Amino acid sequence: MKNVRGIVFDLYGTLYDVHSVAAPCDRYHPGRGREMSALWRQKQLEYTWLRSLMGAYVDFEQVTHDALVFASHHLKLPLDRAACSALCQEYLKIQPFPEVPAALARLQAMALPLAILSNGSVNSIRSVVAASQLEHHFAHLISADSAQIFKPHDSVYQLAEQQMQRHRSELLFVSSNAWDASGARHFGYPVCWVNRAGNTFDELGQSPDHVIQGLEQLADWIAS
Amino acid sequence: MKNVRGIVFDLYGTLYDVHSVAAPCDRYHPGRGREMSALWRQKQLEYTWLRSLMGAYVDFEQVTHDALVFASHHLKLPLDRAACSALCQEYLKIQPFPEVPAALARLQAMALPLAILSNGSVNSIRSVVAASQLEHHFAHLISADSAQIFKPHDSVYQLAEQQMQRHRSELLFVSSNAWDASGARHFGYPVCWVNRAGNTFDELGQSPDHVIQGLEQLADWIAS
Repeated sequence: MKNVRGIVFDLYGTLYDVHSVAAPCDRYHPGRGREMSALWRQKQLEYTWLRSLMGAYVDFEQVTHDALVFASHHLKLPLDRAACSALCQEYLKIQPFPEVPAALARLQAMALPLAILSNGSVNSIRSVVAASQLEHHFAHLISADSAQIFKPHDSVYQLAEQQMQRHRSELLFVSSNAWDASGARHFGYPVCWVNRAGNTFDELGQSPDHVIQGLEQLADWIAS
Repeated sequence: MKNVRGIVFDLYGTLYDVHSVAAPCDRYHPGRGREMSALWRQKQLEYTWLRSLMGAYVDFEQVTHDALVFASHHLKLPLDRAACSALCQEYLKIQPFPEVPAALARLQAMALPLAILSNGSVNSIRSVVAASQLEHHFAHLISADSAQIFKPHDSVYQLAEQQMQRHRSELLFVSSNAWDASGARHFGYPVCWVNRAGNTFDELGQSPDHVIQGLEQLADWIAS
């Protein structure tokens, strides 16, 4: 077994599918849900990076709201206040990827403490994890809100090291977001990139230590 | 005339058309140039933000190279070392938007010191401005390289205030990039957003002080 004393998971796009919101978007604008969801996510990411760099932090729920407002304006898809609020609520109940519940159970059975380290607010993380009834798997739910800045800033990655009381070299960081995997590795975590969709890893001067196609492969690799 | 004692221009996408590289891309991969150029630009922006946030600054020419490598991998369009190098060179001779030369001449005739404040390296800015023979219009060419971080970080916006020896409130910041206009305004510059393409302004808690469709409208507005 590898020198892994705990696992730190990214949430959005790694354990949970952000495009769960495409179906509810489609109910408001039939045939346009996928496109809305894609632009919404892209802008949500951009706004976390830009606000962090500007020194103008607001929490993830506000960023998610702002990104949806931009997406609906840009796509010229009207969204009244009630619809906007309803869609933002959908972000609090996005679904885990199909293999995630069984994979978490297997990892937990290996007596490894599991954590989530997410840009989401405390409320966002708790809501998503509770809605999918997976909260019993996690020893720590850690929000970037404590650092008042978003990933990939070092002070966010540091939160997991502090709360799990392990040196970064003993914690495995798991993310599907190549930029997040790069940031975590630059900070000093060994990194596993979950590449479900055959994506291209980002050119940010880092490479993942290991690549898997889905979370079911994680326990095998750690035990090998 | 407004209280404008100098004008600070963004370069990429504001004075100069980043999609000038679509035609050379098209020579390597016929019919795919526009798509290559769009992804190249998107990743170039993302990498400036992500590297700034990671504390892993490299200069703009390196970021431009890395973004092109990503784009060609992701689009499965092979690009050997010579082609990659040739396309990066094209970024040093992108073209000004058609109305820019006459508009700069008119602003200069108003005895307003003009500056460029760009994420580009010193070499990138000088090369682009020299290739288009517009260098005589500018009193200052200011590179983010001096701050070793990229816009929209405050320490980049501060460079123009320092070098032009004017308070931020006396300088007009002009950008087509809504995220850049937002960052500059958050720092404290009055901001003019050049919206040539009917884009949507970003939801970053800022609004431009003035919006124009092209640079020819700038002198009229300042004089009004």
